[in-house]
Amino acid sequence: MKKSRRSGCPINFTLEALGDKWSLLIVRDLFRGKRHYGELLESPEGIATNILSDRLASLERAGILFKQADPDHGSKIVYGLTAKGLALSPVLMEIRLWGARHDPRTAFPPALLRKIKRDKRAAVHDEVAGYHRSRMPDA
Amino acid sequence: MKKSRRSGCPINFTLEALGDKWSLLIVRDLFRGKRHYGELLESPEGIATNILSDRLASLERAGILFKQADPDHGSKIVYGLTAKGLALSPVLMEIRLWGARHDPRTAFPPALLRKIKRDKRAAVHDEVAGYHRSRMPDA
Repeated sequence: MKKSRRSGCPINFTLEALGDKWSLLIVRDLFRGKRHYGELLESPEGIATNILSDRLASLERAGILFKQADPDHGSKIVYGLTAKGLALSPVLMEIRLWGARHDPRTAFPPALLRKIKRDKRAAVHDEVAGYHRSRMPDA
Repeated sequence: MKKSRRSGCPINFTLEALGDKWSLLIVRDLFRGKRHYGELLESPEGIATNILSDRLASLERAGILFKQADPDHGSKIVYGLTAKGLALSPVLMEIRLWGARHDPRTAFPPALLRKIKRDKRAAVHDEVAGYHRSRMPDA
């Protein structure tokens, strides 16, 4: 991430933090409950270990995720989304919906897509965010 | 854009088309009514001309924008969003809101931010998309 901002536009702000092909996949995986480096490395997109390390560090610098000692295995590190990272839920949802609508080979079930109305989606966001917030260690 | 997909995930599909620091800024500018190459080049983020050309070509290949002869000046080219590109309106809106909420220096007016309720936003999306659709040449 560059130190000097390209502009004061809030869209640009988000893209400077997350505008690449990998960062939002890591955020997606953390939403899905992955917590360890090895789990993140196993995702089907095949992220390289140096890219994963780099993106985890930049997402932590941006305040989107935190890392800490695993409460169950002190020698391991676990990653999780901060409140700022959890607030990406609607961004990811819209990105998922656009992809599902325009990719003929999408894995997103079309029947589910049809059922999701805009007002329903708001409730789902809150439910998902609440679920993950309840799993977050005190931070 | 790679030919072979990294996975069947719809989030990944969107990132393969738009996951960089520039593409969504071009889409933003087209939503704001810019139509000519020179106008896109003048945006405050300072896109380089070779990057702009490259991204316009990949966005056209992805079916997100179209280009055609300017109806007013036959020798010029105009760019516009296709229906697939216009469908990015909710994605851009959520990216803008996340940026505005988490960037202390954002140019997005906080008073406006507070006033935008989720249900209101849906109406704004439709209004914006309708406005731009009405300005599109027959395609």
